[in-house]
Amino acid sequence: MSGSSAIARTPEPPYYAVIFTSLRTEGDNGYGEMSDRMATLVAQQPGFLGMESARDGVGITVCYWKDLASIENWRKVEDHELAQRFGREKWYSHFAARIAKVERAYGFEKAASAK
Amino acid sequence: MSGSSAIARTPEPPYYAVIFTSLRTEGDNGYGEMSDRMATLVAQQPGFLGMESARDGVGITVCYWKDLASIENWRKVEDHELAQRFGREKWYSHFAARIAKVERAYGFEKAASAK
Repeated sequence: MSGSSAIARTPEPPYYAVIFTSLRTEGDNGYGEMSDRMATLVAQQPGFLGMESARDGVGITVCYWKDLASIENWRKVEDHELAQRFGREKWYSHFAARIAKVERAYGFEKAASAK
Repeated sequence: MSGSSAIARTPEPPYYAVIFTSLRTEGDNGYGEMSDRMATLVAQQPGFLGMESARDGVGITVCYWKDLASIENWRKVEDHELAQRFGREKWYSHFAARIAKVERAYGFEKAASAK
């Protein structure tokens, strides 16, 4: 998926992460358009907490969710099911999806004035 | 961190993931060299299961570990502590680190002959 170049603002743990790592096949084959649609659609789902995404050879998309039920509901959304099917048929030569419970989180952000 | 463009071959869950998401400051400032050293060093740690990494504006590195003790040991490795300090001082304008227990995983890989 394409994503905004941003770090997700997630609440205090616990919550869930779906780590989706992929290698693409050659050519676009409708991937770009579907990827943008999915990014819009996922953000509208109940329980969605944020998404981070980067591609650099390997693509990594991490979506954060309130709970497992929210992940399961998103998996069954009709347009998303289609995207999952096309993913296997056309877009990915290899992928791994991992569902994980975030137990601890910390971060750091420089003040805007600091360089 | 720079990483190989590959999807980690992890065992059956449960295991742990450390999801490190970051935005870089301007300039290299020794980051590239340290990043390569860390990628080599982390792979030698007890309990290390694999790493996936991509940068595309936002950088996402996911390291997989056998258990929480392995993560804690890696956090305290001297050279890694130095890298963590430089990360805050020089390399990152913003980062988030999330420690998560992988509960479920699935994947897909096209046969080499299939296109």
